[in-house]
Amino acid sequence: MLERIRIVLIGTSHPGNIGATARAMHNMGLADLALVAPRCEPLTSDSISRASGADSIVHSARVVATLEQAVSDCTLVVGASARSRTLPWPMITPRELGSRLPAELADPGAHLALVFGREDSGLTNAELQRCHAHVHIPTNPDFSSLNLAAAVQVLAYECRLAWLAGQNAEQPQDEEPHQPLASHQELEHYFAHLERTLVAIGFHDPALPRQLMARLRRFTLRARPERMELNILRGILSATEKQARQSSTTGDEGEPKP
Amino acid sequence: MLERIRIVLIGTSHPGNIGATARAMHNMGLADLALVAPRCEPLTSDSISRASGADSIVHSARVVATLEQAVSDCTLVVGASARSRTLPWPMITPRELGSRLPAELADPGAHLALVFGREDSGLTNAELQRCHAHVHIPTNPDFSSLNLAAAVQVLAYECRLAWLAGQNAEQPQDEEPHQPLASHQELEHYFAHLERTLVAIGFHDPALPRQLMARLRRFTLRARPERMELNILRGILSATEKQARQSSTTGDEGEPKP
Repeated sequence: MLERIRIVLIGTSHPGNIGATARAMHNMGLADLALVAPRCEPLTSDSISRASGADSIVHSARVVATLEQAVSDCTLVVGASARSRTLPWPMITPRELGSRLPAELADPGAHLALVFGREDSGLTNAELQRCHAHVHIPTNPDFSSLNLAAAVQVLAYECRLAWLAGQNAEQPQDEEPHQPLASHQELEHYFAHLERTLVAIGFHDPALPRQLMARLRRFTLRARPERMELNILRGILSATEKQARQSSTTGDEGEPKP
Repeated sequence: MLERIRIVLIGTSHPGNIGATARAMHNMGLADLALVAPRCEPLTSDSISRASGADSIVHSARVVATLEQAVSDCTLVVGASARSRTLPWPMITPRELGSRLPAELADPGAHLALVFGREDSGLTNAELQRCHAHVHIPTNPDFSSLNLAAAVQVLAYECRLAWLAGQNAEQPQDEEPHQPLASHQELEHYFAHLERTLVAIGFHDPALPRQLMARLRRFTLRARPERMELNILRGILSATEKQARQSSTTGDEGEPKP
């Protein structure tokens, strides 16, 4: 299970935090690190020193340009976040994250990404809206900003406890088989298709977004769509687009008055 | 409760670890730091930088020569330790430590000390034997040595969770207000509208249902839609129906061939 948990750091500025993250990961039995557009050289004397023997994780870290590339194969994407912002999103505690892992990672094709933002500004709203859920580490409200590696340490610790609990438990119970969940990439293709369609039917103006796509993302991600369900939804979008095309070829843009 | 939890660091070598410990403590709402025979100057640019605003805790730390002086007033002394050594000692997990705190600290005169050893060699047997119990953070057996401040972070986190659980038990927790969920009737109106629209765009044939509506129901109900979300979805359906009407008034029922 632990090998299918990826730590994703976005826009990290301090090599020491990358090294310390690698150490925290290795201590807890995690190994899969992705660095999205790091704002520093990941391998420096400082990162190697703070990794304290776990620098193989920094060496093997995947460095990519976008969050999409880092999480496209993941079936659950959870962003580390302060308390909710403009648009509330499903928010879980680190302990709830741990308790959900055995079920979330039961399918051998399932992957979890834990996404951490910049030291100074965290995750952007756009990045947060690409997550199924946000996890908030309870902190002193007067001093709430955790060090990056400390935040990784706490969540990795909860992952390890969840894994250990599974090891100690009996053989996993035989739940009814679930359909495979849609991957992050499949979801993003769906959202792009949805937005195109909403523009085509005149429901959505990207120049006046009014959080429409954010609300539809939140709703859809909350349901954790299966791949087959997403295929149905995309079929509906294609049928809708066809109507919009036929409608526009008539040149009649107005509502027929009753 | 948290104000009666003391972090005790013995023989620390790196000022950065003292600063990072102060930050982890302040993040979790702890403030009482004692340094026993530190092997470095506690206040350096490195410790202040790693404290990241929590350096007041380093400034006010008590520096003493012996463990005795640091914990003499404590009613419970717990040493952070690797797995038991020559002489087995009461060993608890971080979570068990948290679950014991409400009872241990119920008396207003009670104090807890959490004792952490040297970066290179931990606590001596003599020091460990001055503790009521040892706490072991579960780690990867192949790479078990946590950074000092990371170990403080994990135990301080468990202390904070235990304190929060007590707070929530006393007063009902004030969750962020949720939007009202859609009622059953609103959902049924939505499903009826959805089915009409799917027929209108030629995606659905009620004579050959193929569980389409059942799948869409299951998906939608799983997300527990809010009333406002349902209003958005119905707006999309209305815009789609309008396209379908415009398309059909042209009398062109077929797909325009490319």
